[in-house]
Amino acid sequence: MYFASDNSGPVAPQVLTALAEANTGYAMGYGGDPLSAEVADGIRTLFEAPDAAVFLVPTGTAANVLALSCLCPPYATTFCSPVAHIHEDECNAPEFFTSGAKLTLVPGSDRMTPEALRASIEGEENRGFHGPKRGPVSITQVTEAGNVYTMDELRALIAVAKDYSLPVHLDGARFSNAAVKLGVTPAEMSWKIGVDVCVFGGTKNGLMGVEAVIFFDPAKAEEFQYRRKRGALLFSKHRYLAAQMQAYLKDDLWKDLATRANARCDQLVHGLSKARVEMLNDTHANMVFFRLPRATHEALQAAGAVYHFNDMTGSTAETVLTGRLVCDWNLSEAEVARFLEALNQVI
Amino acid sequence: MYFASDNSGPVAPQVLTALAEANTGYAMGYGGDPLSAEVADGIRTLFEAPDAAVFLVPTGTAANVLALSCLCPPYATTFCSPVAHIHEDECNAPEFFTSGAKLTLVPGSDRMTPEALRASIEGEENRGFHGPKRGPVSITQVTEAGNVYTMDELRALIAVAKDYSLPVHLDGARFSNAAVKLGVTPAEMSWKIGVDVCVFGGTKNGLMGVEAVIFFDPAKAEEFQYRRKRGALLFSKHRYLAAQMQAYLKDDLWKDLATRANARCDQLVHGLSKARVEMLNDTHANMVFFRLPRATHEALQAAGAVYHFNDMTGSTAETVLTGRLVCDWNLSEAEVARFLEALNQVI
Amino acid sequence: MYFASDNSGPVAPQVLTALAEANTGYAMGYGGDPLSAEVADGIRTLFEAPDAAVFLVPTGTAANVLALSCLCPPYATTFCSPVAHIHEDECNAPEFFTSGAKLTLVPGSDRMTPEALRASIEGEENRGFHGPKRGPVSITQVTEAGNVYTMDELRALIAVAKDYSLPVHLDGARFSNAAVKLGVTPAEMSWKIGVDVCVFGGTKNGLMGVEAVIFFDPAKAEEFQYRRKRGALLFSKHRYLAAQMQAYLKDDLWKDLATRANARCDQLVHGLSKARVEMLNDTHANMVFFRLPRATHEALQAAGAVYHFNDMTGSTAETVLTGRLVCDWNLSEAEVARFLEALNQVI
Amino acid sequence: MYFASDNSGPVAPQVLTALAEANTGYAMGYGGDPLSAEVADGIRTLFEAPDAAVFLVPTGTAANVLALSCLCPPYATTFCSPVAHIHEDECNAPEFFTSGAKLTLVPGSDRMTPEALRASIEGEENRGFHGPKRGPVSITQVTEAGNVYTMDELRALIAVAKDYSLPVHLDGARFSNAAVKLGVTPAEMSWKIGVDVCVFGGTKNGLMGVEAVIFFDPAKAEEFQYRRKRGALLFSKHRYLAAQMQAYLKDDLWKDLATRANARCDQLVHGLSKARVEMLNDTHANMVFFRLPRATHEALQAAGAVYHFNDMTGSTAETVLTGRLVCDWNLSEAEVARFLEALNQVI
Repeated sequence: MYFASDNSGPVAPQVLTALAEANTGYAMGYGGDPLSAEVADGIRTLFEAPDAAVFLVPTGTAANVLALSCLCPPYATTFCSPVAHIHEDECNAPEFFTSGAKLTLVPGSDRMTPEALRASIEGEENRGFHGPKRGPVSITQVTEAGNVYTMDELRALIAVAKDYSLPVHLDGARFSNAAVKLGVTPAEMSWKIGVDVCVFGGTKNGLMGVEAVIFFDPAKAEEFQYRRKRGALLFSKHRYLAAQMQAYLKDDLWKDLATRANARCDQLVHGLSKARVEMLNDTHANMVFFRLPRATHEALQAAGAVYHFNDMTGSTAETVLTGRLVCDWNLSEAEVARFLEALNQVI
Repeated sequence: MYFASDNSGPVAPQVLTALAEANTGYAMGYGGDPLSAEVADGIRTLFEAPDAAVFLVPTGTAANVLALSCLCPPYATTFCSPVAHIHEDECNAPEFFTSGAKLTLVPGSDRMTPEALRASIEGEENRGFHGPKRGPVSITQVTEAGNVYTMDELRALIAVAKDYSLPVHLDGARFSNAAVKLGVTPAEMSWKIGVDVCVFGGTKNGLMGVEAVIFFDPAKAEEFQYRRKRGALLFSKHRYLAAQMQAYLKDDLWKDLATRANARCDQLVHGLSKARVEMLNDTHANMVFFRLPRATHEALQAAGAVYHFNDMTGSTAETVLTGRLVCDWNLSEAEVARFLEALNQVI
Repeated sequence: MYFASDNSGPVAPQVLTALAEANTGYAMGYGGDPLSAEVADGIRTLFEAPDAAVFLVPTGTAANVLALSCLCPPYATTFCSPVAHIHEDECNAPEFFTSGAKLTLVPGSDRMTPEALRASIEGEENRGFHGPKRGPVSITQVTEAGNVYTMDELRALIAVAKDYSLPVHLDGARFSNAAVKLGVTPAEMSWKIGVDVCVFGGTKNGLMGVEAVIFFDPAKAEEFQYRRKRGALLFSKHRYLAAQMQAYLKDDLWKDLATRANARCDQLVHGLSKARVEMLNDTHANMVFFRLPRATHEALQAAGAVYHFNDMTGSTAETVLTGRLVCDWNLSEAEVARFLEALNQVI
Repeated sequence: MYFASDNSGPVAPQVLTALAEANTGYAMGYGGDPLSAEVADGIRTLFEAPDAAVFLVPTGTAANVLALSCLCPPYATTFCSPVAHIHEDECNAPEFFTSGAKLTLVPGSDRMTPEALRASIEGEENRGFHGPKRGPVSITQVTEAGNVYTMDELRALIAVAKDYSLPVHLDGARFSNAAVKLGVTPAEMSWKIGVDVCVFGGTKNGLMGVEAVIFFDPAKAEEFQYRRKRGALLFSKHRYLAAQMQAYLKDDLWKDLATRANARCDQLVHGLSKARVEMLNDTHANMVFFRLPRATHEALQAAGAVYHFNDMTGSTAETVLTGRLVCDWNLSEAEVARFLEALNQVI
């Protein structure tokens, strides 16, 4: 009954198989091997973007901050949600990699609205050189609070960015979960709606440790490569990053893994709803936030459920606290059923 | 009728005199001259802090960010008001000089409250190494919105910082105006209430371009000196910075200049009050924010008054807009009277 | 006949086995899992340093620059060889992670001498705050030119660093190869001779992508953890980094792999010597640099040998060029013999 | 007999006059005042560059590093002399302001030669993304060792930079001294020979604290302004920087001051030559380096001469040491004669 994170579970068996298959003979390092080239092509094909520049990096934070470093000058600011991972969970990595660019937090609880984004953008650059220049807009899909922007919502947000000629970064740590949830293709949820740089996450969706950063306009390709190496993020035995992605692309494994995780979350949401438990998100892909009295959370944990609670409040004083349930590809229907049963007992 | 800024007026004549007097013979550069040493002693004496380390820098932003760079590691965050100069008007200089530390904006409209500060501090460091470490607390006195913290308010804020062993930085661009307003000594408004690093501003109070950064515990002295030079902020002909400060200290010129500016603001506030004009600040030293319909502002400007309006809103759509009136040492009673007369005419 | 790099070969089979074994069930991410704790203990045991702080990172550059970032203030300089990996092959990563510290290149062709190091150190900090503060000394063992410092040479170098109270960083990308070559224990080649922070490399010695950074004095542990996360270098599915190290420690695999690579290099050196080929290094562990006419290199390559030539000169004009042969754990006696045979044919 | 630095003397009286004249009434800060605009035009006129972007900053280091920050990406390197001020005397400021770009020191004792520069440039970018990208070439004129590149030497160096499409930065802390020495116009010694960004120094040539940074192609103007503010280097009471430059331009004061300083140096060189004292520079503008036994230097200092010795060696062990004599505008013939007399006595 492990729901604490989609970083906690095992990797899909196809990944280990691919790693073993890649583990023969010699190949140039640093991305110069045939498998890496093949995988980059495969990602371009998946995203229907034959000219895109594709890079693999070992962590999600790396993917985000290297992308932003190419989009956001040091004297500019990136617009994002106040609960964005880049703001809350990267320990100043964005500020570091952009050499001191700011993050302008667009007021709201999770998903940005076009109105709030527009107001935030308008609020910058009205002090001449005294304040930062307007920089990229960063959107997380699936959001950190487990919500999924609809395609219309994404288009509306991106339209605001385009009004100001600002580039758009998509933090796709859970890209696959969103694409599956919405029933859209990767191209439809990225460049076709105006995303300039997309992070296609792997680690949270069954891979060992790899994310793809995709620049649909390859003009920044050289800069990215220098910054990646300078950021100590260029994997020397690169074929092992590529092998994970190769497994991910083969037979649409990325879609299968996300479908499984999403289904488990649907099952959870259904059960929570039946039990009349308050849930915070109004949409979901593979994560749901729910509210229970402290004692109930503690009882659930005592029954063996592992998940974080308090995540959204930061306070331990309250009686009713928010818990977060994250479903990964490996979670079974039986485990979810066991959780729901325990839940019904402790309520 | 110039009220746009306290950076706009002439410098006090005593400053030019001091510059001329310092302009004889040869002296070591970079702060190694006798006048610089004498002035550092003078500031220590004024602040009753015989062990303090004192440094002169040419801009207010420099003073703030060099101070913060010694107090805030790159992986930490500084707590400040959402309208703090370090956040709104330094074009990412704090992020630059601290190598990417964040600024945590303590919710509120201007002055931080102990409760809000405590909540913000509590909100950090609850995610292990995923979020920044708690760093210094930065307080501006006089605030950017023209308010003056009372001594009790300062003590209460600083007590919160001390609860968490966080160092306290005072942005004293208008330090003198505040000290005069409150009728306290520099020591009373700095180290005696727990301020660790104080910026004693000169530029806004009649000097040409110099601020003193005072570290009451001299342990950081060496680090500051390296960072100042590295920041391209070590003035080579340093005696000319020192000469300005020498004039400032002599016969308490710093106090006289601030007293004059404050008095002009009292006169303004009295007049605005009589005219039943809405004012935003509940206290004032040398700045007041007032609200009038757009047309009235425009009429006032047409009558020759120079000041910024919209400062606090960022929006040009409103009919009623906020204007900012700043009084410097050079402003005369007659000029203020002329303004109030014009005001009464256009209302 | 692949000698281009020790980043090019397959990983040891024990590594894949360990990854598969680690791939069961759920575990906290970011290093909070039991395997990671067990492996840290194992490294402490191997290094006979029960109080050391041990961290795993995914790349060699990451290990070096995160170590340096904790040892070298932004206004200081790190002393290293002109051919040090941190200077030549990390694309400004040291300057980035230290927020702009310099690298002072100690004159010499590869191994630093105590005299040259002392002169370089003396050459800094004689300009007051105008030049950088003296920072750490960084030693690579095995050096980038394939040489192995003797224990006496290391002690003499470190003694110089200690004379100036400067911390010592050991770039141990090929640590195991050196330790095996010298017949010393990890403790003997690190903290026992005064190394403060040691990088215990895995990637070049048969692992997939992991290095251990060992701080013998754990005082910097908290800072390192913040900087690692901020550097986007904290692996979320950390147990897979740990599993590689677990395999490395088990049955002294680290020693076996290095022994094999070193033996292949001995075989190469013996053969080159018999063929009267000029070699540049006077010592060797698993790398040898040799000089041949361009045409001979080309013939060798045409015969199927893969290695870099020109490495040490940067010029393509010369007739006699330097080639670099690197032996990894996977190289067989037969392959080396085949190379030597081809060599003797083309000479 | 003060020869220690051209930062040590008084400022030219015309400067104080200009400051006093500027000290009337109110003017927008931060460079938005009429005098600042007039002076920028004046510099454009002086340099015959009607489209140039001109900026004033308070220190020479600021001028250099802000210029480099616009020319050199963080993952690149700037080529300069090993004794360049940007390397030896700016305490890592270039590395800081460029966010970690390197400095590639072109081998040589002072003036770079085209051959050495070409070799250094060729030495970079031959390791793909493992080493930094080639960045700007930085030339100091007058050099730190007191030499003056001839126009042909400058052209030859710049031609090498242009071969590689690298921008050229001229550190002109002593620009005027060089232009006067060579009998060329500012335009002839800058954009007409291919300099992209020129620092027109004022502080060392009789001003109080101001340098002009001139971008002949104004494309970088916006970026510079953001970086200057972010660097805490935007002077708020900007008209006082402008006033100094206004005095500098008026009646070619810049030329007069430099002519005087150069003449005093000619007088010194003549005297040193007659006394058969070894001099290090083969050319000179306003600085000469000379060699005497330690005891002789000490005797000269005891006789009242103030200057640095050992500058070029860093060692105190030698019997024969190098001293540096710097002439500023204020030095009189009589003072120089007195020095030469004392010299002849102690020899």
